[in-house]
Amino acid sequence: MEKIKTADKEAYIQNGERLDDLQRNGLYIIQDPDKFCFGMDAVLLSGFAADHASIAEGNVLDLCTGNGIIPLLLSAKTKASYIIGMEIQPEIADMADRSVRMNGLSDKIEILTCDIKEAAKYADAASFDMVTANPPYFKVGHGVINPEDTRTISRHEVACTLEDVLKAAAFVLREGGYFYIVHKPQRLSDVICCMREAGIEPKTLKMVHPRIDAEPSIILIEGRKGAGAETRIESPLIIYGSDGKYTEEMYTIYGY
Amino acid sequence: MEKIKTADKEAYIQNGERLDDLQRNGLYIIQDPDKFCFGMDAVLLSGFAADHASIAEGNVLDLCTGNGIIPLLLSAKTKASYIIGMEIQPEIADMADRSVRMNGLSDKIEILTCDIKEAAKYADAASFDMVTANPPYFKVGHGVINPEDTRTISRHEVACTLEDVLKAAAFVLREGGYFYIVHKPQRLSDVICCMREAGIEPKTLKMVHPRIDAEPSIILIEGRKGAGAETRIESPLIIYGSDGKYTEEMYTIYGY
Repeated sequence: MEKIKTADKEAYIQNGERLDDLQRNGLYIIQDPDKFCFGMDAVLLSGFAADHASIAEGNVLDLCTGNGIIPLLLSAKTKASYIIGMEIQPEIADMADRSVRMNGLSDKIEILTCDIKEAAKYADAASFDMVTANPPYFKVGHGVINPEDTRTISRHEVACTLEDVLKAAAFVLREGGYFYIVHKPQRLSDVICCMREAGIEPKTLKMVHPRIDAEPSIILIEGRKGAGAETRIESPLIIYGSDGKYTEEMYTIYGY
Repeated sequence: MEKIKTADKEAYIQNGERLDDLQRNGLYIIQDPDKFCFGMDAVLLSGFAADHASIAEGNVLDLCTGNGIIPLLLSAKTKASYIIGMEIQPEIADMADRSVRMNGLSDKIEILTCDIKEAAKYADAASFDMVTANPPYFKVGHGVINPEDTRTISRHEVACTLEDVLKAAAFVLREGGYFYIVHKPQRLSDVICCMREAGIEPKTLKMVHPRIDAEPSIILIEGRKGAGAETRIESPLIIYGSDGKYTEEMYTIYGY
């Protein structure tokens, strides 16, 4: 399915950027190896969210949206009627915005250049059915180099912390609304305690392991605002089989 | 290795009770199917604790010790110099005490019949190197039948809650001391938040799955008092192989 002609797409690309085929609904995305490229984590999160939430025709907010990978994939994988992506870095938000327009999705996806700590300026309380977040993973230590580098801001909690993410999510989510976050296993306790603190109860966990006998490299967590305390841990997702190729589950559930 | 003669052992048994071979250091344990029999969870917890803690010649406190299965196994699996087991139910504590004496371990293991909510009456603050707990798993709902039945008290939070366990553990543990708990996956968020609240940081998690493609049925968690926030999730432990028998890992790491 080819929705956009190559010549038309190239009009949206700037110096140093490239176009990647999302292999889903004919979608393409603009990336820049020097500034922002999405990771497998974002793909896994969108699959996890699409697989778990019942938000037919609901509104979705994606925090720390980067180049818009999650809104783009959710537009294809869910029946969400409207998806907003918030990104603090103007250059990256612009890249996301161009991807949205290039894919002809301006009626469904909106990219806001804003600080999620000011989410209340841009969104009403309890107005969203689902919030997703692939936030910066690492706490800011003494050793953070180039705190203004776009890649540093995407990976380290320079511009926003886990607490900021949960605070924004708890504000915009309706009661019973769904929250999906991807993070590193090292931060599991932080994520769980922070979610509960914000009134978003952790309901489902999925560990993602590179291989069947390896420690997990990624955790996927579903929360629901105001829900009761009971967590379900699903069977793990294994990325690579013994043949070194993606497992069947990766393709069927979490494929692009 | 047969340390106790059969005739000698029988002197310790009362009506309705039976003797089980722990297949470790010639140890035997007294059980009563109508009152208390240990589960695989206790065996897994003792293996997990022995495998992770560095407590050579340290003191260990086992909360909710039941028939003393964890103190007995830890006496064989670790170099702990002294192990105390606290049990609130006099009948069950008596069973544990008779197992300790029967195995000739009175110089190493002590069973106290007491309420862990009053742990401060029986133990000094910061006096233990390690605390273990296989607590009641289920919250008390409206449907708890026979709240005075010994099996109900062992399984439901009738006599003590997770908060009580953590409060006792935090009181008796020295700074940097180890805490090991086994629980149900449904309570994961409760356990993690409760540990952090008590100042015992969750450091290592291990999920135990009946089969490789099944959801975990048991979680093992290691905490350390006063430690920094970073959680490690280990590769999962699988109980049964495709042949329906225990896996090699079950035998080598967590065997009796």
